[in-house]
Amino acid sequence: MKLHGYFRSSAAYRVRIALHMKGLPFEQVSHHLRRGEQRAPDYLAINPQGLVPSLILDDGTVLTQSLAIVEWLDETHPAPRLIPVDPIMRAKVRAFALAIACDIHPVQNLKVLVALKRGGYGQAEIDEWAKAVNAEGLAACERLIANETGPFCFGASPTLADLCLVPQMANARRFGVDISGWTKLVAADAAASALPAFQAAAPESQPDAE
Amino acid sequence: MKLHGYFRSSAAYRVRIALHMKGLPFEQVSHHLRRGEQRAPDYLAINPQGLVPSLILDDGTVLTQSLAIVEWLDETHPAPRLIPVDPIMRAKVRAFALAIACDIHPVQNLKVLVALKRGGYGQAEIDEWAKAVNAEGLAACERLIANETGPFCFGASPTLADLCLVPQMANARRFGVDISGWTKLVAADAAASALPAFQAAAPESQPDAE
Repeated sequence: MKLHGYFRSSAAYRVRIALHMKGLPFEQVSHHLRRGEQRAPDYLAINPQGLVPSLILDDGTVLTQSLAIVEWLDETHPAPRLIPVDPIMRAKVRAFALAIACDIHPVQNLKVLVALKRGGYGQAEIDEWAKAVNAEGLAACERLIANETGPFCFGASPTLADLCLVPQMANARRFGVDISGWTKLVAADAAASALPAFQAAAPESQPDAE
Repeated sequence: MKLHGYFRSSAAYRVRIALHMKGLPFEQVSHHLRRGEQRAPDYLAINPQGLVPSLILDDGTVLTQSLAIVEWLDETHPAPRLIPVDPIMRAKVRAFALAIACDIHPVQNLKVLVALKRGGYGQAEIDEWAKAVNAEGLAACERLIANETGPFCFGASPTLADLCLVPQMANARRFGVDISGWTKLVAADAAASALPAFQAAAPESQPDAE
């Protein structure tokens, strides 16, 4: 399999974790997002959204969207399970993942920040926006797992929720958000980050890391 | 079951379609989003994100995030299937849905528009932004289904993809986007909108419609 991504992309990071968790070998193709390489015509022919990641299967099938890719990996390579078997737990894990993937990540991502800059925001106001989106979103995530036992977001093993949490906590730290009060999130982030699969998938471990 | 929503919310609209498709009766509780009712303390106790929809099951379990709710409905009430059985088709349907739910909807939603206004954008520039996000995103969606047979996004029956498409096409029209060139999307939107379940779920059919 071939993963089109970028070391700093949170969405590609989620898929790298899943591939490493399942012990699946994969090649990487890097697209430098700040240079706009994801909008090159040859990449748009692969992924019309011009976003990373895309996963190319050995038969040439192209899968896009990180959460859809992780669901596919979990259905076709179920060990270890990243989405629990029980329907209610599946719904809770997915809701947590979507709270990050829909309501935090895209709203603090490059495209919106660029628009805010064009609109007249100064750098301090842009940083404040990104910080506030992360702070508000992660505070809600902490409450979504308030009654879970840990150490991971949902119990004794990592799930799709942790795959989304770890990259987002890295973003929150980068934006200077004080994450220390979210004890469940901090514990899950630490437990996940100690695993070899999460370490192998981390941005700084990628061949295109700068 | 009880659905917390709002007639104009695209995310609540997706869940209403799923419930009607599966013939499941449900009560509705409306939260007026522009008045901020979704951030009232009693609703935050139900949904810490302060977003709609939330689906309350008969045993009191709270499910949040529209796509997670639809996945749960499809797993527990499989007829008719909204997510196909084949793993690759599941991945494609989910990727299309996520292309809307992550990369179009939140980026053109109220929160970002308010930030752009605070940043200094005038109303014309805000409208232009919302229009551009819809136009760029839906153009990619059209290409994602370029090789599908129709009339729905993925074949002969509606899927999660159509549940996301119909509300987003309504948004695109509202923002004045010229949708006519996207023949696959227009056909899928028309085929879905002709179904009783989609009509019953439409914003104008809801008790809280203004």
